[in-house]
Amino acid sequence: MVGGGQLARMTHQAAISLGVPLRVLARDPDDAAAQVCADVRIGDERSLDDLRAFAKDCDVVTWDHEHVPQELIKALEEAGTPCRPGSAALLHAQDKLVMRERLSSFGAPCPAFARVPREEPLPFLESFAREHGLPVVVKATRGGYDGKGVWVLNDLDRDARELVDRLLADGVDLLVEEHVAFRRELAAMVARSPYGQGAAYPVVETVNRDGVCHEVICPAPGLDDDTAAEAHRLALDIAEHFDVTGILAVELFETDGGLVVNELAMRPHNSGHWTIEGARTSQFEQHVRAVLDLPLGSTEATAPYVVMANVFGGGPDDGADAVYARYVHVMAHDPAVRVHMYGKRPRPGRKIGHVTALGDDLDEVRARARHAADYLRWGPAMKEHA
Amino acid sequence: MVGGGQLARMTHQAAISLGVPLRVLARDPDDAAAQVCADVRIGDERSLDDLRAFAKDCDVVTWDHEHVPQELIKALEEAGTPCRPGSAALLHAQDKLVMRERLSSFGAPCPAFARVPREEPLPFLESFAREHGLPVVVKATRGGYDGKGVWVLNDLDRDARELVDRLLADGVDLLVEEHVAFRRELAAMVARSPYGQGAAYPVVETVNRDGVCHEVICPAPGLDDDTAAEAHRLALDIAEHFDVTGILAVELFETDGGLVVNELAMRPHNSGHWTIEGARTSQFEQHVRAVLDLPLGSTEATAPYVVMANVFGGGPDDGADAVYARYVHVMAHDPAVRVHMYGKRPRPGRKIGHVTALGDDLDEVRARARHAADYLRWGPAMKEHA
Repeated sequence: MVGGGQLARMTHQAAISLGVPLRVLARDPDDAAAQVCADVRIGDERSLDDLRAFAKDCDVVTWDHEHVPQELIKALEEAGTPCRPGSAALLHAQDKLVMRERLSSFGAPCPAFARVPREEPLPFLESFAREHGLPVVVKATRGGYDGKGVWVLNDLDRDARELVDRLLADGVDLLVEEHVAFRRELAAMVARSPYGQGAAYPVVETVNRDGVCHEVICPAPGLDDDTAAEAHRLALDIAEHFDVTGILAVELFETDGGLVVNELAMRPHNSGHWTIEGARTSQFEQHVRAVLDLPLGSTEATAPYVVMANVFGGGPDDGADAVYARYVHVMAHDPAVRVHMYGKRPRPGRKIGHVTALGDDLDEVRARARHAADYLRWGPAMKEHA
Repeated sequence: MVGGGQLARMTHQAAISLGVPLRVLARDPDDAAAQVCADVRIGDERSLDDLRAFAKDCDVVTWDHEHVPQELIKALEEAGTPCRPGSAALLHAQDKLVMRERLSSFGAPCPAFARVPREEPLPFLESFAREHGLPVVVKATRGGYDGKGVWVLNDLDRDARELVDRLLADGVDLLVEEHVAFRRELAAMVARSPYGQGAAYPVVETVNRDGVCHEVICPAPGLDDDTAAEAHRLALDIAEHFDVTGILAVELFETDGGLVVNELAMRPHNSGHWTIEGARTSQFEQHVRAVLDLPLGSTEATAPYVVMANVFGGGPDDGADAVYARYVHVMAHDPAVRVHMYGKRPRPGRKIGHVTALGDDLDEVRARARHAADYLRWGPAMKEHA
């Protein structure tokens, strides 16, 4: 797996059970996965030499993130290394304009979108805004994640114009989308194997703030069966059209007019962390099974409600030991809450772990997950930040 | 964790979630845990130098097996290294005679037992057999596991006499026990922290052949509440009397006259592998929490029935790849069965993995676990070995 983040770290836990030796390519020995894996290669995933040395003797290469350049993945493929997902599939998770064009070509519901031209961008945006209304959403076509690379423009006055001019001048390619008035955000996760087998997890609600996932609720409360089936069909269609192998997470807006595709990820995804305890087969094991072309595992939920809450850094006493000291309260307060920490320094706003609660009563399960996540961040100062 | 077997391997999976860096002392880089852990020291747990070098900078030292000599554990303790469980507790899992004497001293139910004297052992055994009947069970006081070091003598004729004489001449200390006519075997697993907190898992039935565990059923079918409570009380009492820290597994005989203690293990134990998916907190995480003096996790079962079946080596085509090739059938046949392989070469009779099934219908759950375990061993030749 290329990339040494928490997704590779949790994939390693799953690979151990299957007896599958996981090698990771990490930039730094302190990376989340590099801390816990036996077979770690230190290198840069933007270097073909590093990638080639890493991939030697690997049966399959897969990805912890989308940031490996297309031409390098293609070079690996041309040298005969099976890459799953492959470069052609991954392009749709790397380039938001390509994704929109291809999704639209087979009728997947998207917001209105257009490439922002380098010549006369402002008149173009003004025309787009007249047609689709304000705000508009401007996105870098490549390189964004967790809300980075996305700008919601409430008007096209001076600040907005300066932003667009600066980005284009910096060489960033932009796309503009209509702002979707959504009721809430959902995510549909599926896996697909090279053989063509598909498996779909229950559709979840994701609670995001500033583009960053804070909480995931499984199943999405009150979701009607038709919409859930539509979300599954959409995700399985996308997986097939794009020839995805491994996990595909489709972030969706639920609107008055139906579902709209927001973003895609072709790897284990934050919206699927609940599956570690909450589904019979975790997304991490499922990804390993899919990329190795093994039969996929059951996606059945193990409890009526499962809630995952991310743990962020940035509370008081920001040492790793401070977070560890808070285990005593969290574990004594709720012996059934599940704690997952990634070995990352708790910088403000950084995802350093997650917690999962399961049970029959949604309000109670949400409160338990929320309490544990907040306490791990804030400690006894939590009340001030409620 | 001293020892590089599958218990350390699965403990590593649990430690990753808690952000606890696990170092293992393994004899060989190919050991089950050494294959998957980032921090592996190669050495011999019977060498004080190796143990000392390993334990340097460790917050706590714990054990994957009982085979570290007492004097070496004491030396670590005297140098200030917290060992959990400590030498005084561990002695009861290392020396069966000490265990019997101490258990009897506080009234824990044991079979009749006695040390076999080095002078005139046969007349002593004959006298013991006259009092308690035949067969008698002769055990090496130290060093046995998985049925090794245990001999059931149906008579005291020539073969038996030669065996006893040979063992004593080889320096093996022996104890003799009355043969317990049991209805079935049970196991009670508890955890205890230095703080003194205890937690008990549901009592399971273990199905053993020739002293080797083949199957574990949670909960023990048809076990009445009084007997389950008695098993819990007994295990928690033993943990407290022996000052156990970490997991304690108490193997029990269920007899017409009540429960009788068979063996003890002070570490994660084969009878608790079902907890990985079948309990809210696995025995491996529980052990880590207990030895770090963190609050213990919920032991609640996650399904009405959980069955674990061990996978043994020794089918046809005994390469590791042959077992892997069988994944396709096992996973396609039952997408919900959970597979755990230990990265061990499949020698005949060797435990190389286990499978777990969960559900509402005990017969079905047992059949699923059995099918997966048998297929992983035998492959398509399974039918001939039904």
